Amino acid sequence: MRDAPRTAPRLVVRVELGHGSIMGPGKADLLECIDHCGSISAAAREMGMSYRQAWMLIDTLHQAFGRPVIETNSGGRAGGGARLTSLGKRLLAGYRTLQAKAEKSTRHDLEAMVRLMAPLGERATRPRR
Amino acid sequence: MRDAPRTAPRLVVRVELGHGSIMGPGKADLLECIDHCGSISAAAREMGMSYRQAWMLIDTLHQAFGRPVIETNSGGRAGGGARLTSLGKRLLAGYRTLQAKAEKSTRHDLEAMVRLMAPLGERATRPRR
Repeated sequence: MRDAPRTAPRLVVRVELGHGSIMGPGKADLLECIDHCGSISAAAREMGMSYRQAWMLIDTLHQAFGRPVIETNSGGRAGGGARLTSLGKRLLAGYRTLQAKAEKSTRHDLEAMVRLMAPLGERATRPRR
Repeated sequence: MRDAPRTAPRLVVRVELGHGSIMGPGKADLLECIDHCGSISAAAREMGMSYRQAWMLIDTLHQAFGRPVIETNSGGRAGGGARLTSLGKRLLAGYRTLQAKAEKSTRHDLEAMVRLMAPLGERATRPRR
């Protein structure tokens, strides 16, 4: 499942894989979308990004993991398609597990942080510099 | 303590507070630095950012929490200083706790993700589009 409509506050978990490669919620959603849609272009459309953007995000994962996370099937009557490789599936599942554990372990701390926010009627004027 | 020199992989945890405000590792480091340095300008210098950048980051927290996270003390022989308010201290401590719990709960999943990365000698040529 993709993320529910974003309501605050929300924990966002990213894994810095080295050399500037990051696995985070955007790439997880994109992999999931490719898995559902069966093509990069349909997934890109659903995510509101260009095919090129989607491909570049996927390519950073190819670079980070050294092997493809999706396999494409160009040509044929269906006009080509894409699906997750075994690596892509394991990466997506691994990220979702990691995300769920991080959310679960920090739920009370997140709530405590929200309680630090002043109610609307008690908000101070911001200091100026 | 500030983060150790960054080595991959690393879990990064951000809290989206709503209205575009985010509490993450950069702001936590900045608050910590102000706490140590006793001034925004010294903290900004240590973090390699301008005073204006540092102030804007702090201001997003003021907006999100509706109350100041630092208090400044302009003038005087010391040329002004800054320190964390009680809210600022609680926010910083709360974020560090949350970060530590997230890291602890996901350690094995992070290691499993790293094991998905192909060793250097076994890296495939990236597909092209």
